[in-house]
Amino acid sequence: MSQCKFSVIIDQKYSLDSIKKENDMNKLPDISKDVSQWYNEIVYKAELADQSPVRGCIVIRPYGWALWENIKTVLDKRIKETGHQNASFPLLIPESFIKREAKHVEGFAPELAIVTIAGGKELEEPLVVRPTSETIIHYSFARWIKSWRDLPLKINQWANVVRWEKRTRPFLRTTEFFWQEGHTAHATREEAQEEALLMLNEYINLAQDYLAIPVIAGEKSPTERFAGADITYTFEAIMMDGKALQMGTSHLLSRSFAKSFDIEYQDKEGNLEHPYLTSWGVTTRLIGAIVMTHGDQKGLVMPPRVAPIQVVIIPIYKKDAEQQVRDAVQELYTRLSKEYRVQLDADDSKSPGAKFYEWELKGVPLRIELGPRDVDNKAVMISNRVTGDKTMVKLDAIESEIGSMLDNMHQELFNRAQVKLQGHWNKESKLAIFGPVMDKEAGAYQTGWCGEEECENKLSEFKGTIRCLLKENEFNQCFGCNKSSVRDVLVAKAY
Amino acid sequence: MSQCKFSVIIDQKYSLDSIKKENDMNKLPDISKDVSQWYNEIVYKAELADQSPVRGCIVIRPYGWALWENIKTVLDKRIKETGHQNASFPLLIPESFIKREAKHVEGFAPELAIVTIAGGKELEEPLVVRPTSETIIHYSFARWIKSWRDLPLKINQWANVVRWEKRTRPFLRTTEFFWQEGHTAHATREEAQEEALLMLNEYINLAQDYLAIPVIAGEKSPTERFAGADITYTFEAIMMDGKALQMGTSHLLSRSFAKSFDIEYQDKEGNLEHPYLTSWGVTTRLIGAIVMTHGDQKGLVMPPRVAPIQVVIIPIYKKDAEQQVRDAVQELYTRLSKEYRVQLDADDSKSPGAKFYEWELKGVPLRIELGPRDVDNKAVMISNRVTGDKTMVKLDAIESEIGSMLDNMHQELFNRAQVKLQGHWNKESKLAIFGPVMDKEAGAYQTGWCGEEECENKLSEFKGTIRCLLKENEFNQCFGCNKSSVRDVLVAKAY
Repeated sequence: MSQCKFSVIIDQKYSLDSIKKENDMNKLPDISKDVSQWYNEIVYKAELADQSPVRGCIVIRPYGWALWENIKTVLDKRIKETGHQNASFPLLIPESFIKREAKHVEGFAPELAIVTIAGGKELEEPLVVRPTSETIIHYSFARWIKSWRDLPLKINQWANVVRWEKRTRPFLRTTEFFWQEGHTAHATREEAQEEALLMLNEYINLAQDYLAIPVIAGEKSPTERFAGADITYTFEAIMMDGKALQMGTSHLLSRSFAKSFDIEYQDKEGNLEHPYLTSWGVTTRLIGAIVMTHGDQKGLVMPPRVAPIQVVIIPIYKKDAEQQVRDAVQELYTRLSKEYRVQLDADDSKSPGAKFYEWELKGVPLRIELGPRDVDNKAVMISNRVTGDKTMVKLDAIESEIGSMLDNMHQELFNRAQVKLQGHWNKESKLAIFGPVMDKEAGAYQTGWCGEEECENKLSEFKGTIRCLLKENEFNQCFGCNKSSVRDVLVAKAY
Repeated sequence: MSQCKFSVIIDQKYSLDSIKKENDMNKLPDISKDVSQWYNEIVYKAELADQSPVRGCIVIRPYGWALWENIKTVLDKRIKETGHQNASFPLLIPESFIKREAKHVEGFAPELAIVTIAGGKELEEPLVVRPTSETIIHYSFARWIKSWRDLPLKINQWANVVRWEKRTRPFLRTTEFFWQEGHTAHATREEAQEEALLMLNEYINLAQDYLAIPVIAGEKSPTERFAGADITYTFEAIMMDGKALQMGTSHLLSRSFAKSFDIEYQDKEGNLEHPYLTSWGVTTRLIGAIVMTHGDQKGLVMPPRVAPIQVVIIPIYKKDAEQQVRDAVQELYTRLSKEYRVQLDADDSKSPGAKFYEWELKGVPLRIELGPRDVDNKAVMISNRVTGDKTMVKLDAIESEIGSMLDNMHQELFNRAQVKLQGHWNKESKLAIFGPVMDKEAGAYQTGWCGEEECENKLSEFKGTIRCLLKENEFNQCFGCNKSSVRDVLVAKAY
């Protein structure tokens, strides 16, 4: 089946021994033992990112940025289809703005980067590099919203934000990161809450239908809410080490934002009212979630619907049929590029073996090998990055075949992640029992909660947090005290 | 022809008198007398932008941002098709980086916004909010470029940058602005220069084929070069008041950048060499150029190929056939949306007259009016924003008809701008003659130049600058002295 692999023009430099040796040197840390170390290496080795000279900031390399662009394209379309318009608000925010909403400043003050000098002079009022844009956007909302006719107002921006984080990790938590932040205003609380839930639902669809990541969604506990929100909805994934990753949030903001920024409109009866506001966002952290959810010992595995490269074509030359193969791969590349994101790796300075290694490391879903025999047979070998299967596919129907392979791969990735999620989902009634084992990568725990902060705080001893409130109500008692449980919660350590 | 206009359900609030009155109040400044004042009002009235609480920064509103997104889509496609990859580099740059290249720091130091406090502490080394990214990108280039095999390296980023400008104007010069900045590295000077010219050419195509703006392109004089460039290519448009607007630039950088950032590679012979670098960019200033080039007394005129809305549909209700019209406009909207960017303005609270006014102000290329008679006749009236012509078009072939109307409008806009450009292009040999009249909106002057900075400096008395060196060599003598001219230059006042 895979004989093509060995029909290589053997060259001392690229003997199988030397490839093996090089691969051993480049070996990734054991993913089953130390996901965290594996992660820290793969993001750089696969060229998603590079280190930067600025504390906590990364360079997002073309391969990583292309992934983000694909995610953006999918989400941006849905943001527009659900009636939002993109706009752009200033990066720099007067310090006094951040201070207007009491809880907001309390939440963000420790993380701010502040411009104090500009144009050679000390500024009278320092400017904050936006950590999020509620305050400056609400300033505009106050200018734009005058009458009930101006509602709902549904705005989104794709932007960079800066939060001076103590501990950073590429994509998962960086000082500067990229995101979209939606900001909307509505006449009623019900409508605003519906909006927050609508966008939560869009995020869940993005995660599940495009990133192939099954998620748990629900409300945050009051202490875990966004600084200044009445309700924060979250969607979380469980990584392979059992830790939770918050993938994004959607908030119904407290009314004090509208009040602090004097957003008022005249309703149909002529009364002045404050609108109800929401905000919601997902970030480049989604890239980290993809890496952590699907990766394996060979490297990344890109979910096919957002993969920067869906198919890589590798020519297998033989000395007497080089031109024939060159023409055939070029023709195939042109054909497939009409429907898919395709890379032709015709670099003569590398052996096919070295290429296989590289594209597996980068997680390209499908690899096509094409040698002289394949030209004759009008068929090619396609290797599946997830299952490792190799399939001989006739060239005449290759487009539709690739289409189904990519769809199946998406489903396969989702199913595998679903199984892992279930494996990490435990149920336990008492913190004393599950607290100590959360540490041992057992995963997340569904348990009961009385609703009191005091019990929630007990989780910190084990570095756990309530990730979200669940719809279920299977536990009668709180995990931390003897009181009745109000509702079940999911507890885990988190990234 | 335009009787539909009057078949309105008349309502006291929307009587023609009251509309006229409102329009008078909203009247734009006379564009033929004061373009500058007209510009300052139209960008806000047409909702391209809004004021912000941050000095020199604007909010780009959905209508302005959609225009930028359309420009981005066109240019991004070409950037990728010409072999560049998008990536993303940190917003904040260590101050020491900016200082590494002597001319670069000299050029940018007065305009820097500087973060001195972050995470509640004073930073050991201040961070500059990027005014441009050569320095931080070259840091990465030094990590990525090791061998001749790594060249050429062709990177682009879409980003926001901050320059603390003394005088600002919406889109034309703002403290924060948006742009793409391309950065490339090449083995030879010839190849780098070709790259700089290739991208200049892409920009010219963008301006002419999409924005309908005829441009003058060429090299900048040494004093007008980018801080640290060996050659700066520019493309400029002449606005309706005869002032030049630099629309974008493309640079062959001086070798000191590669040296300052230790970018070295091993060539095929094994020698260590510094590569040749380029950078090139266009900004949200292009929006200002569109406004200033095509606008008229009624407001904006959007070039059809990048217009946020290409066609607006306005229903003309009559009491006995309201539902019939509602259904017809909805059907037409659905049909046209498949091929064009269409807006259906079915807002019952506004009269057709008020809508005509608004969409003319916003410069939507084509306006379709659809009333009960049109439903019966299976034809609609289409008004052309540029010529004011109204054409009755059969519904069955409306898609292709709109296609040609938009194409013709693009050509018409380009031709009109071309005629204006020629009208502003003067030839004069001596500064003493053309200097004083440049002030009087006569426009740009082609003249001879000896190549000396001393003569170039004489232009400042009249607030003129050399906008670019021309290919022509029609003048024998320098405009400022008695020496021979080296080549012709274009002199003008500039935005």
